[in-house]
Amino acid sequence: MKIGRQERRSSAISTSNAETILVRGRDLARELVGKIGFTEHFWLLVTGAMPSSAQRRVLDATLVAIAEHGLVPSVQASRMTLAAAPEALQGAVAAGILGCGSVVLGSSEAAGRFLAEIQARAAAGADLESAASAVVREYRAAKSAIPGYGHPLHRGGDPRALRLFEVAAETGVAGPHVAIATLVERLLPGLIGRPLALNVSGAIPAVLLDAGYPLTGLKGVPLLARTAGLIAHLVEEQQRAIGFVMSHAAAQAIDYDGEAPAGFKPSEEA
Amino acid sequence: MKIGRQERRSSAISTSNAETILVRGRDLARELVGKIGFTEHFWLLVTGAMPSSAQRRVLDATLVAIAEHGLVPSVQASRMTLAAAPEALQGAVAAGILGCGSVVLGSSEAAGRFLAEIQARAAAGADLESAASAVVREYRAAKSAIPGYGHPLHRGGDPRALRLFEVAAETGVAGPHVAIATLVERLLPGLIGRPLALNVSGAIPAVLLDAGYPLTGLKGVPLLARTAGLIAHLVEEQQRAIGFVMSHAAAQAIDYDGEAPAGFKPSEEA
Amino acid sequence: MKIGRQERRSSAISTSNAETILVRGRDLARELVGKIGFTEHFWLLVTGAMPSSAQRRVLDATLVAIAEHGLVPSVQASRMTLAAAPEALQGAVAAGILGCGSVVLGSSEAAGRFLAEIQARAAAGADLESAASAVVREYRAAKSAIPGYGHPLHRGGDPRALRLFEVAAETGVAGPHVAIATLVERLLPGLIGRPLALNVSGAIPAVLLDAGYPLTGLKGVPLLARTAGLIAHLVEEQQRAIGFVMSHAAAQAIDYDGEAPAGFKPSEEA
Amino acid sequence: MKIGRQERRSSAISTSNAETILVRGRDLARELVGKIGFTEHFWLLVTGAMPSSAQRRVLDATLVAIAEHGLVPSVQASRMTLAAAPEALQGAVAAGILGCGSVVLGSSEAAGRFLAEIQARAAAGADLESAASAVVREYRAAKSAIPGYGHPLHRGGDPRALRLFEVAAETGVAGPHVAIATLVERLLPGLIGRPLALNVSGAIPAVLLDAGYPLTGLKGVPLLARTAGLIAHLVEEQQRAIGFVMSHAAAQAIDYDGEAPAGFKPSEEA
Repeated sequence: MKIGRQERRSSAISTSNAETILVRGRDLARELVGKIGFTEHFWLLVTGAMPSSAQRRVLDATLVAIAEHGLVPSVQASRMTLAAAPEALQGAVAAGILGCGSVVLGSSEAAGRFLAEIQARAAAGADLESAASAVVREYRAAKSAIPGYGHPLHRGGDPRALRLFEVAAETGVAGPHVAIATLVERLLPGLIGRPLALNVSGAIPAVLLDAGYPLTGLKGVPLLARTAGLIAHLVEEQQRAIGFVMSHAAAQAIDYDGEAPAGFKPSEEA
Repeated sequence: MKIGRQERRSSAISTSNAETILVRGRDLARELVGKIGFTEHFWLLVTGAMPSSAQRRVLDATLVAIAEHGLVPSVQASRMTLAAAPEALQGAVAAGILGCGSVVLGSSEAAGRFLAEIQARAAAGADLESAASAVVREYRAAKSAIPGYGHPLHRGGDPRALRLFEVAAETGVAGPHVAIATLVERLLPGLIGRPLALNVSGAIPAVLLDAGYPLTGLKGVPLLARTAGLIAHLVEEQQRAIGFVMSHAAAQAIDYDGEAPAGFKPSEEA
Repeated sequence: MKIGRQERRSSAISTSNAETILVRGRDLARELVGKIGFTEHFWLLVTGAMPSSAQRRVLDATLVAIAEHGLVPSVQASRMTLAAAPEALQGAVAAGILGCGSVVLGSSEAAGRFLAEIQARAAAGADLESAASAVVREYRAAKSAIPGYGHPLHRGGDPRALRLFEVAAETGVAGPHVAIATLVERLLPGLIGRPLALNVSGAIPAVLLDAGYPLTGLKGVPLLARTAGLIAHLVEEQQRAIGFVMSHAAAQAIDYDGEAPAGFKPSEEA
Repeated sequence: MKIGRQERRSSAISTSNAETILVRGRDLARELVGKIGFTEHFWLLVTGAMPSSAQRRVLDATLVAIAEHGLVPSVQASRMTLAAAPEALQGAVAAGILGCGSVVLGSSEAAGRFLAEIQARAAAGADLESAASAVVREYRAAKSAIPGYGHPLHRGGDPRALRLFEVAAETGVAGPHVAIATLVERLLPGLIGRPLALNVSGAIPAVLLDAGYPLTGLKGVPLLARTAGLIAHLVEEQQRAIGFVMSHAAAQAIDYDGEAPAGFKPSEEA
């Protein structure tokens, strides 16, 4: 059935014939393979244009920063899935990717929208500090967390965020979004009553938006980066299987508090 | 419950404390972010060691080669999923990744096992041509396709495969697996009665195994690469929605041939 | 790492030992298997209590109503995924389920929240028609669609919605949410300027909320039901493969409008 | 592009027009909704015919038996995914379903193929015990587990398997596949040197194949059933969040044994 509007019937990413594959207008085999790196190719795919050297360096830095952080929930889900279904590595990767959500890992895009909203008000003539304070207050009134601030482990400051800002400075891309992210960190204690350090998911959109990367592609950065980390974990899982070890420990941490017949004793192993 | 053996209880990929994140023994923020590219980081994550310049170039070439090839089934599944569930970009990426299977996209690993089997027999003393012929015949006897050969569009030769072999030669990594892949292409007409050109999924394992990339990580290459292509398509889908257009065309290509009451007329739109 | 609050450390759904599996306090093998139907079991699993006969009939009716509607986008995604990755039926089911989103199939929960909001205002003393009009206007002001109304094919009325209301009447469960759903349908022309018939995703929450099924479990109904339809399609796909046929037709419906070298001619097949 | 053969261009499951939805030739709204239960509808969807009362009872029994078994890996993956990405319930269900694989939960189909192979040899004239012994030996020679036997918790016998055989006897469907499943259990100690009790994934195909359910649809039974259990867990997760509690416990069970700078101390929480 026809669902929704269907006026647009074209795509500008790739086409091909028997001899040639075009990607963003370039001959894939002759102009791209062996000539550009994967990070440049990702920028080209998403934006349609080749990145400058500074843009490529900033994108590389964000992808490296967010690719891996140990046995986080998405990695555990992925390794447990491979242990249960070793016939389909793609299924285990998919299970991990599904955990790149609004609470964990996926907040880069939300943080980007937060920074862009402040920047839009400043660009429209508002005083930057007033704009930032207003947007923070609106998030609080809507009972939304301030995206990109605070981390359960790195409470004193996320070392990846600090380093990304250094890279933005080194490459000369640091601009208004980095400034806003820093300003908000300074304002937060006064606005919400406690300090919250910028985290990697706040730093990524700050440096990428300043580098000219599009807001709508921000969530793709943690998704692509984490896929690399997941693959490394799944290669390790094939050699040393810990998926079911983690599952056993996880189950033991939870009690059953539903009804049970008198005298029923749960398995100590379960 | 305890499922399977549980002796191994460790991981060697990452650990952290409040100040520092270690990835493969390196300080992520201080030693890696801004200093290495994403492709090097992927190699480090999977193998535990930094790639040489030639290894990095070959891995880059394979990732660029396989990232995108237009509106293939996995891309369609991904764009339709985003159209139906725009609240979860990660779900649309996952739907696309699930199509990296044994028939489409995921055959790099199967092709790697095929090449490695021939190489193992040659290393054990067999004549290379005899080993290759024997393994091809065994696949045919088991009614398995020869993985890495033939392409529905690029019947005269996959331009990506040819280019990857040039890159392997340029970087000096070309070795036994590239030689085997070429030999098999030459032998196939005599063994199966028709020519089948090496495709990109056959060339990827040939050049990567020669470069020292591990067999167990081969499937990760198309998975990571295609994630980049999927993200580009999903960014485009947000701006020009064609997911439901494709779905409508797909439904129109299929007739209903089940029972129906006399006089029932299906919707022309459906 | 510890993410978020972690005070609750228990579950009330199931526990077991070597001899016995308890589900919601019942002995699964002795009290449930062979004694209750799957629909009753689903109600028990979600709510912790056995359904009345009327509750079971209404839940059955909703599951039957939403299980299948032909080659919709989620079914296409699922069949294409199986064609590409036949080694993992679970991956093809997952790809289909990922399309149960806010736009297609997943709107039962959103419609439930819409009806429950009107009901809450009426329960707090508001006039029902005023409450309904106010909530509709608030959705319009927020540029949200009115969930549960309108259908791309069944413009004159969704036959499943009408039938579900009959079942609710027959079983005696019809109550305030059914009344609200009907009232809103009557009010919509005056409020938004055109008629929009109640669809199956609006009728499902109306009858289920009236039957005492919980709001938080509403999205589970289309998800469970559609899984049944997906499995039927995947069984058929194994016998008559149309996944790639649909994909070919879908690709042909879309033009490439990006850059191309002079004289480049896309494959007519692509 | 055109992938594979594309001769078949039809489907027999469902069609529709503006007034009527046909499912397997029946008018969905007028003939099915409110008149048949979901289990009958599932049988109808998969096979194209309505089940007998005995067939429906046996299918119900298998779905109830396999729907839920506590905090198993797929449930943990699902709950962790919802904790990380609460915006997409369908993503959390998908993550759980991806764990219905060849090792856990998905072995009903493999067990069905095992039983059907023995039955086919007996039907072709072989002595039943010889056929069973031969097939077991072939699985062992191929280093495959005997699917449907053994359970990590229910070592003395899976109470669900025993109960399913009672239901098959009560309904009169018990036939050759149940007999083969019982025979193999008796033969296993002699063939593999230790007893292995039939488990639920072995009993499900035995009773369903005897009831006339198709082999190609067997994997759909645990998939559909477990979707019900996953939804119950996700409804509970929304009220008492234990996804991150389980993740923390799982991470603590695993040590980091990679390289680290002298003096590096991992977080006790991580």
